[in-house]
Amino acid sequence: MGIVLGPNQYGKSENRVVRVYRDTERHEIRDLNVSTSLRGDFEAAHTTGDQAGVLPTDTQKNTVFSFAKETGIGSIEEYAMALAEHFVDQTESVSAARIAVAEYSWRRIEVDGAGHDHAFTRTGAETRTTVVTVGGTGADRRATVVSGVNDLVLLKTTGSEFHGFLTDHYTTLPETADRILATSLVAKWRYDRTDVDWDTTYRSVRGLLLQKFAEVHSYALQQSLYAMGEVALEKHPEIVQIRFAAPNKHHFLVDLGPFGVDNPGEVFVAADRPYGLIEAAVQRDDAPAEAEEWHW
Amino acid sequence: MGIVLGPNQYGKSENRVVRVYRDTERHEIRDLNVSTSLRGDFEAAHTTGDQAGVLPTDTQKNTVFSFAKETGIGSIEEYAMALAEHFVDQTESVSAARIAVAEYSWRRIEVDGAGHDHAFTRTGAETRTTVVTVGGTGADRRATVVSGVNDLVLLKTTGSEFHGFLTDHYTTLPETADRILATSLVAKWRYDRTDVDWDTTYRSVRGLLLQKFAEVHSYALQQSLYAMGEVALEKHPEIVQIRFAAPNKHHFLVDLGPFGVDNPGEVFVAADRPYGLIEAAVQRDDAPAEAEEWHW
Amino acid sequence: MGIVLGPNQYGKSENRVVRVYRDTERHEIRDLNVSTSLRGDFEAAHTTGDQAGVLPTDTQKNTVFSFAKETGIGSIEEYAMALAEHFVDQTESVSAARIAVAEYSWRRIEVDGAGHDHAFTRTGAETRTTVVTVGGTGADRRATVVSGVNDLVLLKTTGSEFHGFLTDHYTTLPETADRILATSLVAKWRYDRTDVDWDTTYRSVRGLLLQKFAEVHSYALQQSLYAMGEVALEKHPEIVQIRFAAPNKHHFLVDLGPFGVDNPGEVFVAADRPYGLIEAAVQRDDAPAEAEEWHW
Amino acid sequence: MGIVLGPNQYGKSENRVVRVYRDTERHEIRDLNVSTSLRGDFEAAHTTGDQAGVLPTDTQKNTVFSFAKETGIGSIEEYAMALAEHFVDQTESVSAARIAVAEYSWRRIEVDGAGHDHAFTRTGAETRTTVVTVGGTGADRRATVVSGVNDLVLLKTTGSEFHGFLTDHYTTLPETADRILATSLVAKWRYDRTDVDWDTTYRSVRGLLLQKFAEVHSYALQQSLYAMGEVALEKHPEIVQIRFAAPNKHHFLVDLGPFGVDNPGEVFVAADRPYGLIEAAVQRDDAPAEAEEWHW
Repeated sequence: MGIVLGPNQYGKSENRVVRVYRDTERHEIRDLNVSTSLRGDFEAAHTTGDQAGVLPTDTQKNTVFSFAKETGIGSIEEYAMALAEHFVDQTESVSAARIAVAEYSWRRIEVDGAGHDHAFTRTGAETRTTVVTVGGTGADRRATVVSGVNDLVLLKTTGSEFHGFLTDHYTTLPETADRILATSLVAKWRYDRTDVDWDTTYRSVRGLLLQKFAEVHSYALQQSLYAMGEVALEKHPEIVQIRFAAPNKHHFLVDLGPFGVDNPGEVFVAADRPYGLIEAAVQRDDAPAEAEEWHW
Repeated sequence: MGIVLGPNQYGKSENRVVRVYRDTERHEIRDLNVSTSLRGDFEAAHTTGDQAGVLPTDTQKNTVFSFAKETGIGSIEEYAMALAEHFVDQTESVSAARIAVAEYSWRRIEVDGAGHDHAFTRTGAETRTTVVTVGGTGADRRATVVSGVNDLVLLKTTGSEFHGFLTDHYTTLPETADRILATSLVAKWRYDRTDVDWDTTYRSVRGLLLQKFAEVHSYALQQSLYAMGEVALEKHPEIVQIRFAAPNKHHFLVDLGPFGVDNPGEVFVAADRPYGLIEAAVQRDDAPAEAEEWHW
Repeated sequence: MGIVLGPNQYGKSENRVVRVYRDTERHEIRDLNVSTSLRGDFEAAHTTGDQAGVLPTDTQKNTVFSFAKETGIGSIEEYAMALAEHFVDQTESVSAARIAVAEYSWRRIEVDGAGHDHAFTRTGAETRTTVVTVGGTGADRRATVVSGVNDLVLLKTTGSEFHGFLTDHYTTLPETADRILATSLVAKWRYDRTDVDWDTTYRSVRGLLLQKFAEVHSYALQQSLYAMGEVALEKHPEIVQIRFAAPNKHHFLVDLGPFGVDNPGEVFVAADRPYGLIEAAVQRDDAPAEAEEWHW
Repeated sequence: MGIVLGPNQYGKSENRVVRVYRDTERHEIRDLNVSTSLRGDFEAAHTTGDQAGVLPTDTQKNTVFSFAKETGIGSIEEYAMALAEHFVDQTESVSAARIAVAEYSWRRIEVDGAGHDHAFTRTGAETRTTVVTVGGTGADRRATVVSGVNDLVLLKTTGSEFHGFLTDHYTTLPETADRILATSLVAKWRYDRTDVDWDTTYRSVRGLLLQKFAEVHSYALQQSLYAMGEVALEKHPEIVQIRFAAPNKHHFLVDLGPFGVDNPGEVFVAADRPYGLIEAAVQRDDAPAEAEEWHW
């Protein structure tokens, strides 16, 4: 029986890169949180402390910042791809690189009805995300792109029912024909190609998810999610799978009866914990097997 | 030498009240975090554990939820006022009540270019706030309203300088004629009356703060804040003081020189800690002395 | 009617200072979060952007780190006092300085039953705190020290009742003769002198608070807090006031009756929000009027 | 081309269960955060909203609380196993159940040198964890147990070097023969059997990790982690793999030279972001293939 090194990766996490485009008086801003991970032959670093093959995480950080200027940030997918390819191509010990990016969004401050040239305010806690993984050389080169949105908070005040469920000895939940349905959505969709108009596709998928959430008369959060995933796949042949992690943010109707007050679906308490958690993928029936990145 | 009870208050904090208006098919939503505090003669509760004068925090919670239906939530200021007056008027041991409310904002999900009737998405981490304090009886009745905004994240990519400052033995900071200026603003403004159109005033003050932040060519965050406060006071005679707590969220220019890359104000690292913290009030020269609520 | 600058202060917040003492092979560590605030004549900085009297927050940061070596960190109170005096004495525009410190604690990792010389593990989320404010010159020099503990999490599984309280139209809470009492305590005590053995006193007060919380048969969290404050004042004549902010972290007994299971005080759900919040001061009857630092 | 449901699971997350043992006057407390996930045939719930096979997450919550009394909480692993087996055995649509538990630890408050019978204080942010997954029926029944520790904060003030690393165009990091090494460790170890003395093994593994971290003269965090994993596997044949996620919490030496102050490894700034992140598994060479739970 021997003891050996198993799966491993290392990198620099949460580099907070802010890139300003100021070629004209009308500035643009990209605000990112970038994490790198390198995989390869790092056995000596673990077993003997020999760092000869290890590109320091500090160097990875420098590269992340320098590429924000050298290649610029056209879309987070292109920027991540450039970084991942750089690490794989330029570092002999590296067999694969995984670059994760979250983007915070800003909008221009309105002054006299028009957006200001260089003053901005943050919009929402929501972030746009991507994870780009590049590995292999020559004909074996493989790049996977999984993009998504984090913390997209959605709520419907009606159009949501929950009944007909399985019951057992521990069931006390009453059925309901009208409830609030709310979630803070994490969605990730996997592309099967890389010649994609990333920004346009992101806006389209995000819009489809929102619209379908609004339109579905829901009998379960699972059903809403499936319909949202389905429409994204229908409209975007470049996407082969979409995965959701959706907390069911419970809003409980408050019993005002003891105070002689009727409450027909008007006053709710928003609960913190526990919460339901629905995790589901919707995919093409010929989707290639999942990459490691896809696991929860 | 005796030991005595000093200042004290108690209440129920962070009641997460969600109120849906569904009188027509076009639903409205108000999403609040409500905290109550009662002051009065509670000495026995502290010294002997006698609760005869203590209205339980659980009862305060019930009242908060019931009032969301009974009086409704026209504006957070009116709702807080109704709650504060109730506790002072109805509970003999209570001499003053302080109601703090933070409101989360939502916007309608767009479907085919129009806002959906009952589906919403959260907008931002920013909250609208108020603290209403009511005390005294009869002619001594006094109500103070301090409203504001929390976590309003602002950033300018240029139009900010910092130089000519005092230096001493420990100064290493270089002067700069162009930097990013960013903050996550907490602003609180005190009214000197209660016959105010609260919602309209809130939108106006928030808009003025944003616009002035954008317009001021800044030589210090202090200067931007003062100008922001000044314009709010100029346009709103019902406000006697405005107070700011503004972290200077540093964005440091990254030195890309070692990599042979020029960086003329384009690539920054957004730092977490430490951060500058500017706290300042702008007020009328005849503003009444500060209420306790005004202390940081 | 004029518009003027009101109360203001500025500084560098959350400097994360780690000081290692390595004079022998047995290292010591002090791990601090230090925030500075300066008050004085900074009107020009606000109204015109003139920084001539403004010592940059970056310089304050440098001073914080340099003093960790120059004066060392004997106790957080002495270190904060040295910093505050420095800013007031060396900077003409500064009339008062407020230094707030939180200290994280570490203990030695045990190896073969003994504490290791230079390897440590963090103990708890609890921090030791102090706020030292120094102002005035010559005979008017005044220094106030308010020390305390943050996030001291306490729980009793019995020995806590709650009944005999005031009821009104909105009361639904049943009385109880046995409940869990839990809090995450913030305590701050004000000294009336500065020739104190700070470390010894801190340990003593913290120990007294813990012991009294355990020993009091409680009829209300207010009563427990008062008794805790009383004993601290009795044993420590150098303390004139102690202030508490104590969330009542509710633990609700779970009704297992629907499943045919008895639950005599054994299974609870720990709730997040809302929570009761008790704020109270215990003080000497001749305590000097409160400094601004004492406001919640 | 068809669109189909992919991998999915659902459950109730973060049930905050507090179990008091009060059979004698000396109470015991177990304080848990429990999350359930069920897998199985839930296609109809997603595609049509039909809930006939869906055991509500509310029912799962009820079961979690009732089992805290019915089976009790001997160790978190036994409790999670009982819950997982219950869901798989009693619910026809469920093919596998995954129960994740985090345990907060408490210690008795000291009164006159002895631990109090029923008063406690929380120890640390660190939690003990387990994930138990049970699936299959009859001969195909399979149970996996992955236990661990979260947020174990460790620091060495010396005995850590970093040099001899790979350099490229973007490398600026100087080598060092003496630095602070600090991390907030997440460790998870997989058992290959279930007849384990869970509590004893947990204490042993945790102690071995701490001791080895202290003892290893480190040339890289990777090397420290490997040695820590190796000793855990050597001493515990029931463990087949241990996995680490370890942020390298950077402590940068502060340059006090501009102030004429020497700083030989004494004053550091503790940085927040970015941080290095080392992820690595140490395992037996005959370890069975990883279960899904093992993916990052």
